[in-house]
Amino acid sequence: MSNEHDSLRAIVWNNDALQLLDQRVLPHETRYLTLRTPEEIANAIKEMVVRGAPAIGITAAFGMVLAARQAFARDKNDWKSLIKKDFQLLAASRPTAVNLFWALAKMQQLIDNLDNYDDSTLLNEAQRIHAVDITDNYRMGDLGSAFIEPNSNVLTHCNTGSLATGGYGTALGVIRSAYRAGNISQVFADETRPWMQGSRLTAWELVQDQIPVTLIVEGAAASLMREKSIRWVIVGADRITANGDVANKIGTYNLAVLAKYHGVKFMVVAPTSTIDMNLANGEMIPIEQREPVEILKFKGQSVSANGATAWNPAFDMTPASLVDVIVTERGVVENPTLEKIQTLFR
Amino acid sequence: MSNEHDSLRAIVWNNDALQLLDQRVLPHETRYLTLRTPEEIANAIKEMVVRGAPAIGITAAFGMVLAARQAFARDKNDWKSLIKKDFQLLAASRPTAVNLFWALAKMQQLIDNLDNYDDSTLLNEAQRIHAVDITDNYRMGDLGSAFIEPNSNVLTHCNTGSLATGGYGTALGVIRSAYRAGNISQVFADETRPWMQGSRLTAWELVQDQIPVTLIVEGAAASLMREKSIRWVIVGADRITANGDVANKIGTYNLAVLAKYHGVKFMVVAPTSTIDMNLANGEMIPIEQREPVEILKFKGQSVSANGATAWNPAFDMTPASLVDVIVTERGVVENPTLEKIQTLFR
Repeated sequence: MSNEHDSLRAIVWNNDALQLLDQRVLPHETRYLTLRTPEEIANAIKEMVVRGAPAIGITAAFGMVLAARQAFARDKNDWKSLIKKDFQLLAASRPTAVNLFWALAKMQQLIDNLDNYDDSTLLNEAQRIHAVDITDNYRMGDLGSAFIEPNSNVLTHCNTGSLATGGYGTALGVIRSAYRAGNISQVFADETRPWMQGSRLTAWELVQDQIPVTLIVEGAAASLMREKSIRWVIVGADRITANGDVANKIGTYNLAVLAKYHGVKFMVVAPTSTIDMNLANGEMIPIEQREPVEILKFKGQSVSANGATAWNPAFDMTPASLVDVIVTERGVVENPTLEKIQTLFR
Repeated sequence: MSNEHDSLRAIVWNNDALQLLDQRVLPHETRYLTLRTPEEIANAIKEMVVRGAPAIGITAAFGMVLAARQAFARDKNDWKSLIKKDFQLLAASRPTAVNLFWALAKMQQLIDNLDNYDDSTLLNEAQRIHAVDITDNYRMGDLGSAFIEPNSNVLTHCNTGSLATGGYGTALGVIRSAYRAGNISQVFADETRPWMQGSRLTAWELVQDQIPVTLIVEGAAASLMREKSIRWVIVGADRITANGDVANKIGTYNLAVLAKYHGVKFMVVAPTSTIDMNLANGEMIPIEQREPVEILKFKGQSVSANGATAWNPAFDMTPASLVDVIVTERGVVENPTLEKIQTLFR
């Protein structure tokens, strides 16, 4: 599993606390926050100390370990019912990424099945979720990179690497694997306004792992596709519905439309924990609306005129018709449909 | 010509100097710079104190007035040949907007035809270029707004208003006129990375003139078109070729592709001085490449990891096939072709 292009871990369990690399201050500061309660964990997710669908899921799983410890310390008999409000708090931290609910449900089911409080069982499960995520990312790296022809230029969006997952990454994992295989000529990355995950996080990861990266503003994507012979747009996902519609970071749907127009292939890389078979299509996905201030200010400084407002959805929805391939740890789905996605789960 | 939604002028002639509103520090500071030499003028264009194709043209025309004054003061006999290097300096300030070369050529022709140095003839011509630009913008406002149906939501890009022109604006002039006519429900504006002309300039102009504006990141444009029933994308141009291809601020071509996909109409508003009949198509337009640092830093602060680079074309090219209408002061051209554009000049 070792890989010369994979050196970072953003989520670290440390005996009695979860340590999270604070992604709000990267790349200028490398600061780990130490979180000891489910309240602190929920807040860290909400405030985007940690972000990225798989990373949020893993973080929430450890949050449930801490919730159970806290509950058991308070009431050795009624600890299971005390956990309920922590479950709700963690579930309410962000609405769009389904991995959060998937991980919480997994932990809750384990708790429901316990006769007696058992810290090591819960901790083992959270650590297993974390470890499996990394293994799955390596698997997706292999499966996705098989599509990348030699001498390819690729474009990615937001951050889908070690910082967004347990490690290695989803879309960025595929890019890492394809780069290692020698098939990628140039990696382009959208800077990804308004949070700048591309500039701040993806560029930082790739530079650390010695993969050259060229940033663009989102507005340059169409020109880039026309002028730089982009072969693939490779992105992650926050939720994929049963028919293959994809919710992901705002700007993804733009890229999918532009890719179709330019004959560029469009790949979505996500573990099956990102697939929500309960939703028939993408119109049913709750899209988080965030504060206008994220667009109107930059690092606390006002950019815009007083009196202007902003529309700030954090995610968008790309219809399955614009997706060439979904890569999961269970296999790939080309030209996704309900039937093909159902097959993944058999 | 008066209009309650038109209160700003960014270019002011003041006896012996040109005053330019410094657009690099808006909206935080309202500072006019006083420029007295063609060198200062060329530098102001290069450094983006003034930007926007028509505004650059007007500024360059005043630059030639100052060049002639300076040349005549140095050598009363050979002043015409002394001007040549100033002409070159001004012509080299920025490459893409053709209005610059158009205005310089107009002034040079006048100089060539003068028997004797005549400051007032030159100054009158520069002032006429400025005044006609404003008149033309009002005319385009009328012509363009006739296309805007009642209750329309519109999206614009970059800044094409009073700050980008002699006054009133091209695309923003159409928006002003259509708003005044009561046909616009909501104005959305791309923030326009990396220079933030949308947030810093367009929002500032519209707020000053009491037209409500909602900013979006460029990545949200496709979602906006799908979810907010956008009727028109309305943009300016830096150069239009004989066949109707359009060079404009990076991000324009993105919007044109996204508009086509969503059935949103796409309008380009520019005076005929922006049309370059010497170029057959958009592939021949020189696209200015600017420094990566404009993307990698924000207000002097590094945003990205050290070691990352950026691809930073300042403009892009939208093919005529994606343009529904070009609005000029001489009339409108729907579904532009070479023949239709030639007709404008007859």
